[in-house]
Amino acid sequence: MSEPLRIALAGLGTVGGGVVRLIEANAALIARRAGRPIIITAISARNRGRNRGFDTTRYAWEDDMVILGERDDVDVVVELVGGADGPALALARTTFDAGKALVTANKAMIAHHGIELATRAEAAHTALKFEAAVAGGIPVIKALKEGAAANRLHRVYGILNGTCNYILSTMEDTGRDFAAVLDEAQQKGFAESDPSFDIDGIDAAHKLAILSSIAFGTAVDFAAVTVTGIRRVLAADIAQADALGYAIRLIGMAQVSTDAHGQRRLFQRVHPHLVPRDHPLAHVDGATNAVVAEGDYVGRLLFQGAGAGDGPTASAVVADLIDIARGDIGAPFSIPAAELEHAAPADAGLRSGKAYMRFTVADRPGTLAEIAAAMRDAGVSIESLIQTGRIDVAGETRALVSLVTHDGPEAAIAEALRLLDGSPSLAEPPLVMHILAD
Amino acid sequence: MSEPLRIALAGLGTVGGGVVRLIEANAALIARRAGRPIIITAISARNRGRNRGFDTTRYAWEDDMVILGERDDVDVVVELVGGADGPALALARTTFDAGKALVTANKAMIAHHGIELATRAEAAHTALKFEAAVAGGIPVIKALKEGAAANRLHRVYGILNGTCNYILSTMEDTGRDFAAVLDEAQQKGFAESDPSFDIDGIDAAHKLAILSSIAFGTAVDFAAVTVTGIRRVLAADIAQADALGYAIRLIGMAQVSTDAHGQRRLFQRVHPHLVPRDHPLAHVDGATNAVVAEGDYVGRLLFQGAGAGDGPTASAVVADLIDIARGDIGAPFSIPAAELEHAAPADAGLRSGKAYMRFTVADRPGTLAEIAAAMRDAGVSIESLIQTGRIDVAGETRALVSLVTHDGPEAAIAEALRLLDGSPSLAEPPLVMHILAD
Repeated sequence: MSEPLRIALAGLGTVGGGVVRLIEANAALIARRAGRPIIITAISARNRGRNRGFDTTRYAWEDDMVILGERDDVDVVVELVGGADGPALALARTTFDAGKALVTANKAMIAHHGIELATRAEAAHTALKFEAAVAGGIPVIKALKEGAAANRLHRVYGILNGTCNYILSTMEDTGRDFAAVLDEAQQKGFAESDPSFDIDGIDAAHKLAILSSIAFGTAVDFAAVTVTGIRRVLAADIAQADALGYAIRLIGMAQVSTDAHGQRRLFQRVHPHLVPRDHPLAHVDGATNAVVAEGDYVGRLLFQGAGAGDGPTASAVVADLIDIARGDIGAPFSIPAAELEHAAPADAGLRSGKAYMRFTVADRPGTLAEIAAAMRDAGVSIESLIQTGRIDVAGETRALVSLVTHDGPEAAIAEALRLLDGSPSLAEPPLVMHILAD
Repeated sequence: MSEPLRIALAGLGTVGGGVVRLIEANAALIARRAGRPIIITAISARNRGRNRGFDTTRYAWEDDMVILGERDDVDVVVELVGGADGPALALARTTFDAGKALVTANKAMIAHHGIELATRAEAAHTALKFEAAVAGGIPVIKALKEGAAANRLHRVYGILNGTCNYILSTMEDTGRDFAAVLDEAQQKGFAESDPSFDIDGIDAAHKLAILSSIAFGTAVDFAAVTVTGIRRVLAADIAQADALGYAIRLIGMAQVSTDAHGQRRLFQRVHPHLVPRDHPLAHVDGATNAVVAEGDYVGRLLFQGAGAGDGPTASAVVADLIDIARGDIGAPFSIPAAELEHAAPADAGLRSGKAYMRFTVADRPGTLAEIAAAMRDAGVSIESLIQTGRIDVAGETRALVSLVTHDGPEAAIAEALRLLDGSPSLAEPPLVMHILAD
């Protein structure tokens, strides 16, 4: 058997601990599949003294994690610190400067600095791998880069945030409202004490920006992702969607198209969607992730699994290490970073589809007529409209009016919202959710 | 850009034509992802004159496909002829003897001769790849070999035959009986004119034997797969399963366990199962395939997509070619063939679970009592039992009695069937379907 692959681990939190346990527990199996042993030589974390459930003295310790990349006894640095910038980014740069490979679960860093880091890795003829950054344990980066490599992919979308999916599917199962379920999710450890990164859709947007680059050969463009989170979804919306044959899921969606001038355009959006019950994503419950990719030859592929947690994330990290041990040093984004296309963002207004709109209104005559008139004037065609119930908003009783549109341009919906903007009939801005189309 | 990878194609039927079209249509994309062009240099098929929808004169022609492996202008042979033995096997051997790589969609050949061929490929330091042999376009071989490589997998199962799934899900949707749906499937091209290979479960068993080898590091053992097809499933069974909260699917399942003597045992079975409605496989409809793999760190992964057809199969074939072009020549079964474990088959009688049993009985007093007594005497505990309807069997009106057992050993069910064997109350042998457990 060949020389071992020697790794250094930066960050010993939940995921870092999982990586150490996995490499120790499955060492023989990993060595057989990798063709050589994978061993940890050095580690670094913020607090040396903390009890981590394994014997840290077996590995060399560095107080300054950035040093890990420069050690002679390290072939690959595994970065599990997190954060788009700061020590993680410094460590990544040092690692490539030293000609070593980097494996990371850091979606924020890859979404913001992926092209820079890929360029550095390619210049050093070494690997940058980040399977764990998207959809946890699901090997979806590999599936798109390699498994579906022969295809022109035109759309990739999915459930990319386990916290949001846990909250939405629990709201669906229990009929409870967002705040109560979030509270419970925090107590159970499914949501952070500051949950905004997850529930406002930022985490899903990081993953989507990475996925779309891999899928379409476009440069990562996180800034162009349009993001709406799930804070405003009511139990009443979920009940109404259910009655219409839909489940509500936070969907990240990316699509390439060619505009009227023949230019490729990239559409990227994270947004709560109504998903038809006969679509597999409608049955993805709990903290699970799922990604759909559509290719010109393979058709529709679906990949589903645990989107977070120490075990699944460690599984993805070590799969990357096994690839590196086997000599697989491909371009981080499937094609060389310099060849990635800089596609302009698509105009969402030109997209066509069905949408769900919910209005929280004062319960008085004329409100429905006002909404209907705005739809008519904006050219939005209504498929169904019902007044679904009453809720208490800041001590006032309000009625809820939900409608589903026929297929039509998103620009028309935006125009209808503009016409209704500031109307005294509306107690709060309307909630719009797109309906996932096949 | 480096030298092109030169391939020869044996077999120009539906899949072969798809491979040619894909390589021609996506040539630029494939070259970017592979790092070099992939070009076809030579082809062979039974009938040279047939119109195949592309210009065959652009490629060198061999009447004898076995010669393809010996040509100087060929790096990889793509075998799409089919058949476990005969020309396909001769071509594979010639190819490795000449030190060239082989890509194949031939599940029968890999299920029967996979270890011999892997041994030859490894001795020649070349690649044997067969992503297209299992689950069509779904990159599940890659996902298990590489994506989940860090895990000890303990169970792998799924819907491995699109024809059976089309028939079962159409029976479910329409309430029609097996024969009528099979007839329609044949007219639509979803089933062969001789459908026995599919509907008797042999095709799924080939795929399962390959999957379990990859998943568990055991030698391919097709002969040890227990196989039951779907011919005997009635519309009444599907209706009864539906009323109980299950869908019926043909499931291939493989599992490793350790017996009382500490020996690893391999369980492999293709069998119609009752799948709980809250399991993702219950929602896999039409000619789709889906594979579930359970690992010690990653948890449960699900991969779903088109299981057959020219486009999806070509996608998998060309993905293998891109891997080879990138220099990825790993062990065909993930670990070297000589290291694959020869695990003895598991004793199914020791397995525990719930089962559905359906009896077609003479509609007269005492029949139910006889069945109930056999269950009692065999130690099978009954969770529910109902008489579901009447059918006509060979001109006689028969009643259908269905029951679901509590969790219990499969040996007890076998004993109950033995006790009822030859009973004049039964118009035909009972149908047993296992219930998929989480």
